[in-house]
Amino acid sequence: MDIQNRIASLRQIMLEKGIDAYIISSADYHQSEYVGDYFKAREFISGFTGSAGTVVITKEEACLWTDGRYFLQAKEQLHGSKIHLQKMGEPNVPTILEYLEHVLGNSCVIGINGRTSGIKEAHGYEELAKKKGGKLLYQYDLVQEIWLQRPSLSKKPAFLLKEEYTGESTESKLTRIRKTMNELGANVHLLTSLDDIGWILNIRGQDVEYFPLLLSYAIITMDSVELYADKEKFNTEILEHFAKHCVNIHPYEQVYLDVRNFSPKTSILIDTERVNYMLYRELSGEMQIITAENPSIKMKCIKNHVEVENLRKCHVMDGIACTKFMYWLKTHPDRAKINELDAAKKLDFYRKQHSSYISQSFDPICAYREHGAIVHYSATEETALNLKGSGLFLADTGGNYYEGSTDITRTIALGEVTEQEKRHFTLVAASMLRLGDAKFLYGCNGMSLDYAAREPFWRQNLNFNHGTGHGVGYLGNIHEPPIGFRWRSGGDVMCPFEEGMIITDEPGLYIAGEYGIRIENILLVCKGEKNQYGQFMYFEPLTLVPIDLDAIVPEQLTEYEINLLNAYHKRVYDTLSPFLEKQERIWLKEYTKPIELVRRGNNCE
Amino acid sequence: MDIQNRIASLRQIMLEKGIDAYIISSADYHQSEYVGDYFKAREFISGFTGSAGTVVITKEEACLWTDGRYFLQAKEQLHGSKIHLQKMGEPNVPTILEYLEHVLGNSCVIGINGRTSGIKEAHGYEELAKKKGGKLLYQYDLVQEIWLQRPSLSKKPAFLLKEEYTGESTESKLTRIRKTMNELGANVHLLTSLDDIGWILNIRGQDVEYFPLLLSYAIITMDSVELYADKEKFNTEILEHFAKHCVNIHPYEQVYLDVRNFSPKTSILIDTERVNYMLYRELSGEMQIITAENPSIKMKCIKNHVEVENLRKCHVMDGIACTKFMYWLKTHPDRAKINELDAAKKLDFYRKQHSSYISQSFDPICAYREHGAIVHYSATEETALNLKGSGLFLADTGGNYYEGSTDITRTIALGEVTEQEKRHFTLVAASMLRLGDAKFLYGCNGMSLDYAAREPFWRQNLNFNHGTGHGVGYLGNIHEPPIGFRWRSGGDVMCPFEEGMIITDEPGLYIAGEYGIRIENILLVCKGEKNQYGQFMYFEPLTLVPIDLDAIVPEQLTEYEINLLNAYHKRVYDTLSPFLEKQERIWLKEYTKPIELVRRGNNCE
Repeated sequence: MDIQNRIASLRQIMLEKGIDAYIISSADYHQSEYVGDYFKAREFISGFTGSAGTVVITKEEACLWTDGRYFLQAKEQLHGSKIHLQKMGEPNVPTILEYLEHVLGNSCVIGINGRTSGIKEAHGYEELAKKKGGKLLYQYDLVQEIWLQRPSLSKKPAFLLKEEYTGESTESKLTRIRKTMNELGANVHLLTSLDDIGWILNIRGQDVEYFPLLLSYAIITMDSVELYADKEKFNTEILEHFAKHCVNIHPYEQVYLDVRNFSPKTSILIDTERVNYMLYRELSGEMQIITAENPSIKMKCIKNHVEVENLRKCHVMDGIACTKFMYWLKTHPDRAKINELDAAKKLDFYRKQHSSYISQSFDPICAYREHGAIVHYSATEETALNLKGSGLFLADTGGNYYEGSTDITRTIALGEVTEQEKRHFTLVAASMLRLGDAKFLYGCNGMSLDYAAREPFWRQNLNFNHGTGHGVGYLGNIHEPPIGFRWRSGGDVMCPFEEGMIITDEPGLYIAGEYGIRIENILLVCKGEKNQYGQFMYFEPLTLVPIDLDAIVPEQLTEYEINLLNAYHKRVYDTLSPFLEKQERIWLKEYTKPIELVRRGNNCE
Repeated sequence: MDIQNRIASLRQIMLEKGIDAYIISSADYHQSEYVGDYFKAREFISGFTGSAGTVVITKEEACLWTDGRYFLQAKEQLHGSKIHLQKMGEPNVPTILEYLEHVLGNSCVIGINGRTSGIKEAHGYEELAKKKGGKLLYQYDLVQEIWLQRPSLSKKPAFLLKEEYTGESTESKLTRIRKTMNELGANVHLLTSLDDIGWILNIRGQDVEYFPLLLSYAIITMDSVELYADKEKFNTEILEHFAKHCVNIHPYEQVYLDVRNFSPKTSILIDTERVNYMLYRELSGEMQIITAENPSIKMKCIKNHVEVENLRKCHVMDGIACTKFMYWLKTHPDRAKINELDAAKKLDFYRKQHSSYISQSFDPICAYREHGAIVHYSATEETALNLKGSGLFLADTGGNYYEGSTDITRTIALGEVTEQEKRHFTLVAASMLRLGDAKFLYGCNGMSLDYAAREPFWRQNLNFNHGTGHGVGYLGNIHEPPIGFRWRSGGDVMCPFEEGMIITDEPGLYIAGEYGIRIENILLVCKGEKNQYGQFMYFEPLTLVPIDLDAIVPEQLTEYEINLLNAYHKRVYDTLSPFLEKQERIWLKEYTKPIELVRRGNNCE
């Protein structure tokens, strides 16, 4: 059944239920970024595989909203589907609400799947429907009725993450959470975000693509944790761990019934940015609802000393794998036989050499030449390009190790690259190094520092259409709130940096149809000098992989930037060289050698 | 009657009225930054003359809260008063609410003057009082009862600002305001901020110290403007202007009665950040209250073409005055006879040479040596230092001209200065020039760009304890919302920069007891290239006055910074030299001469 037929079938059911517009989001029941196969309803209905996007189907039209990262990919994947691409954030592109306001008539009925909708989003639809004298239906998952071969929910086993990896016991975490609940006046806390539940209970699963998380809901009371998950996934060790911490297990779906039956004396803490709309609507009306960000979000983004030490080890392992991969790729005698997928597999192979490696930490982007300009490109057998003796290859990949998760991008010159490619590469490298070298006072957030990365671009009337960085989970979500580097407000950007937080630093430049460049390190937030002005802070780069000198134009760099590059490369060589084969080591020595300042007319911009 | 006696008298009245804590703010009835003499109740009760500060008097204690700009000044002025200084923002210093929560008992009564209190502030006190089972009294101005020689309200005449200065008629402004009122669903708009009223009606007054504003309230309806002000202040020209625009004049105080008598069908637009608490409480309960920022705030901060052209002229006039002053000061044969007040007078004298000069635009700061470290120092006959043959002199002054208002700071080397003074001066100059040279995409605000100025400081573990810049009114408030340069959120910082806005760029460095350095230009926001990435923007410096080369260390500057300084100085010389006397011109040539890059080991930080 092709996309057009699927949409036709859905319209038939919409007609039966009297629904005028049905909205299909990318989410699972937990607002996860990546979702298990069961939840890929938006992909099923549209063919678009990007991680973010929403389909709206009306009687006459079908549209997909997605953001700048996916414009090129969506255009390709929607080809022939008759689904209209709505480029979010572009001039004259309506939001979904503006679109619905325009196309829907009076007494309209809007349909969503309440389990996969956020509260704010659903309230928006509800208000719009009411304004037009209509209503919102949120109980139906219409895709279920036409998706005959829908995959089942994951049944893979969970695993315990020991204290040598987490650095803090579940007991200690629960004590901290309960203390915050007390401060907020709550005696019950409903949690639906999988990374929060995993962090608190020190367990992980294999239910979400790439992220080692367990499908579950949790209700934390002052003396127990009610965990809603498939009991079959837990081994004896986990069951003992649960018993020790008064964690009671219930069937996954039972949470929707249990939240109706709280006593009227309950003060329940929920994070309305994360709890799904259906669950929100099921909450007993007699309870007091206290809304606040999940307390675990601010707690888990500050990595403790054990986690930080693990992360340093993890990035050495990952650095070895990525450096071996770079050596293999750049010195390969017969590169024309390798395609983008082969390259991704090879990098995964090098990571697998480490015994504590678990899995890739997100969908790897291995993108050659023009594919590099598709910011979240994912190669398939149909699209994978064979590599050649020239041009840029972009690899944005990461690994989950017991010692933490990595996220690294390197752009690699495969033989000859053009002068413009080199100039752009050098610009991106300088931007990445400059932000990584920011010194700042405690209180700064990702909005106050983003200029350090953007300035070199803006001076040349250039820019990149994505955030400069995001927080990184420890075997959690690869994009972890509440921090980020962004030049405009909104999203995760206003939270000040604390010692122990980690964040990516990943500027890029994308020339559609030609090439894409991105260079990404993970930075650890550290404390510097404290004096009468306050606590000064700086970043320590955790990522240790060379930046390809073949694409660097020394004349374009200031002395400051050259010093940064040379110091970084010295650190890379000193740390990784003991773990490499002789030929790799010789190669790395050459590719981390100090470069010299070239004096020009004006090299200090 | 000294301060201690005044406080004792006030406590007596507090006892009579049953008030446990009385709060005296710096505000007038319009939340103005500077206030007329009538409104200086906080100064009367405490002796502290700074522009920002709040006194709280309880039965046992009296405290003054003020911010980092005034710590040194307040310490001096409170000496012997038994008033305890609360340094806002310092560790372990309670907020006023925290303090009151701690010191007040059950059933406490908190007193404020509702006319001089903001709504949010008053609500805070109200909630606290309620929490303790007490109440807030807001009707009484207790200071009135003990201030026997209280000055009367200003009676100075108002004046019309013609369209050759405003660039937009009152009719056009009212049309725009009414359009916004319509969009917000309001049919009445109550305005209390003097600069907004002056801007809309194209009138000014002389009722507020330094700011050419008229004490007034305004109620804008769809077909009239009800203006509450002293009719005696208006000449025939203004009365005709009012008649033409259906502006009806009522006594100043009558607004408190009139707001009670609106019809229940009224939808009134008020800015709860600006309307005072008393007026808010007087609003008829039957009306619909719509709260939003005064529409005129976003309108007036974008200067139109006529205003921008006037501002360019105004800054040339001001540049001539300031440059003549610098020449006079630096070449004076007998400087020991001049004190800080004489210097301020001399600068005002040079400004007065321009026929369109009206007045100083704020309390001038002319601060020699250690006085420069007092960020908002105001010299008096008692404190004024005589100038000598060495050390730094800081002048932060400004003028109101019909062509606009200026705000400029230059720090001037009087003969010999130390190596550290020079190093710090050079740092401040580089910071100011770097921020002024920022290039950015439309959408940036003062928080996304502040790093450009802070970075050079933070790299050396240094900082300055004030914002880097503020919007500037056109014969309005010298600190004009809604823009500013700040590294932390809060206040006027999140509004994106629009073409035609003007903002100060004024980093500084303050060594308590030794010296203070600040260098300040006003920047005009301009549009640059527009391409696929968006609309690029840049700043044009309006201020044209040399930066004292006697205190510049060329070795400390990067080539980029030297180019910025030389280009700025060329612009200063080219623009101002035709208007100077021969000796001044020769001097200016020398003090704007290009400096050369000194190559050092690492000069590109």
